[in-house]
Amino acid sequence: MARGESMAVDKEVDHRDYVDVDVRVRYAETDQMGVAYYGSYVVWFEVGRSEYCRAKGFSYGELEGMGYGLVVVDLRCRYKGSVKYDELIVVRTHLKDLKTRMVTFGYRILRKETQEVVVYGETRHLCLNKRGNPSSMPEKFLSRLKS
Amino acid sequence: MARGESMAVDKEVDHRDYVDVDVRVRYAETDQMGVAYYGSYVVWFEVGRSEYCRAKGFSYGELEGMGYGLVVVDLRCRYKGSVKYDELIVVRTHLKDLKTRMVTFGYRILRKETQEVVVYGETRHLCLNKRGNPSSMPEKFLSRLKS
Amino acid sequence: MARGESMAVDKEVDHRDYVDVDVRVRYAETDQMGVAYYGSYVVWFEVGRSEYCRAKGFSYGELEGMGYGLVVVDLRCRYKGSVKYDELIVVRTHLKDLKTRMVTFGYRILRKETQEVVVYGETRHLCLNKRGNPSSMPEKFLSRLKS
Amino acid sequence: MARGESMAVDKEVDHRDYVDVDVRVRYAETDQMGVAYYGSYVVWFEVGRSEYCRAKGFSYGELEGMGYGLVVVDLRCRYKGSVKYDELIVVRTHLKDLKTRMVTFGYRILRKETQEVVVYGETRHLCLNKRGNPSSMPEKFLSRLKS
Repeated sequence: MARGESMAVDKEVDHRDYVDVDVRVRYAETDQMGVAYYGSYVVWFEVGRSEYCRAKGFSYGELEGMGYGLVVVDLRCRYKGSVKYDELIVVRTHLKDLKTRMVTFGYRILRKETQEVVVYGETRHLCLNKRGNPSSMPEKFLSRLKS
Repeated sequence: MARGESMAVDKEVDHRDYVDVDVRVRYAETDQMGVAYYGSYVVWFEVGRSEYCRAKGFSYGELEGMGYGLVVVDLRCRYKGSVKYDELIVVRTHLKDLKTRMVTFGYRILRKETQEVVVYGETRHLCLNKRGNPSSMPEKFLSRLKS
Repeated sequence: MARGESMAVDKEVDHRDYVDVDVRVRYAETDQMGVAYYGSYVVWFEVGRSEYCRAKGFSYGELEGMGYGLVVVDLRCRYKGSVKYDELIVVRTHLKDLKTRMVTFGYRILRKETQEVVVYGETRHLCLNKRGNPSSMPEKFLSRLKS
Repeated sequence: MARGESMAVDKEVDHRDYVDVDVRVRYAETDQMGVAYYGSYVVWFEVGRSEYCRAKGFSYGELEGMGYGLVVVDLRCRYKGSVKYDELIVVRTHLKDLKTRMVTFGYRILRKETQEVVVYGETRHLCLNKRGNPSSMPEKFLSRLKS
């Protein structure tokens, strides 16, 4: 990809329904460059989608309790800046796409104070049943996600 | 991205020059799904590119010692399967693209025993100088990367 | 240490001044045993002492900005139970001992809902100056810690 | 504990049977202090005891496959120095104590090149059966550990 070319991931429209959760950057999440390690954002995406589910009325843990799992099949992350230890950030999660077996979440990591977007991300998940085969998500879960 | 559509990241040709490093999956790197956490692969990519640099005759730490840093600007990861605790895996890293200020590494995570590719990945890095401005990489570093 | 023998770490009296911070257990922090990885608590201790400092009116980052660092010299952790993904826990931090060059924090990890203590911990830190030599902490920092 | 007072953890005699495993410090394992994060050592202890088990002829995963788990009940760690990104270290693990339900591992983290001990540690583990109750470890496992 050429520099300057915008990834689809950046082009998210803002009017979508999203769920915010505040996170404070931990010392453990920094590296010797003095800012958050690039892998820390990937963990924060997970915090974001957990919170998205909770805001929609269920816990991702319930889905696992019903014998399903959402395995990540695709991850994209675009870094525009960095965040520092002790900084308060916002993980903003929205539902980007939903099919019966597949769900895509979009993320933005923002500085709480300035609302500047530092990182854009996206994860795509495939629903697996107990046997590890692709499966439709339970109806209750699907309808809550869309709510 | 539509299902079935292949990401560029999968299409890497195998004849390129790559560097392998063995990694054993740690208990810490698993999650309650019983396999490696999706963020663990991102850490392994970093292990892979560190090893790539070492195989080319320098340490990434030297670059930092010279006052430069390679910040990640883009991360892509495509999961085809999963690996388990104690499994021996190979992180296979190659140089995908190199410009004076920007370097792109490609990765494959393989099961050591079967050589099955479990995860494909890619990271793009921008070189920053001491002041935090985009900068050409030192000549020595560039020539070693290409070697 | 014989079983049943109580560690000093358990005997903390409760009337001390402490600072609480809520943490929700992340999926990344679990392992294949289905509960939080034993190393996750160590990270939460760090979250706890960062919050302790903030509650006392400064950021640990400021201390680093002044050219000092608090290196951990001793860590103890006693596990009485475990916590699960998505569980809301409390990290309760108190000042256990303070000398001009050395500070000891005590921690308790509690389930938010039941207030049951799951883990007891303690970290001891030595203050180093810019040259990496043991040093008294700045007066401002000392007085705030005791406040 | 007074400064200078030696912890039992330091007094390990060297003639015991131990198992070594090399680990290279990852960038992810550093923090903004420029050295390995204090929680990284705790992960390396786990790498050490996994390797100890393997050297004795079984995988810790097998024990879990038989329906048992070794939960950590106690962790101690004493830091004498620090290690840096890309440094090659040795995790040296020995069996410190073994009872039918309880096993204690001792650890030393050494710089590979100088064999200087940087960190001493100890973890104590209780064996639980499928129901989560304390249980004797399987005979096969016990005899291998002692071998």
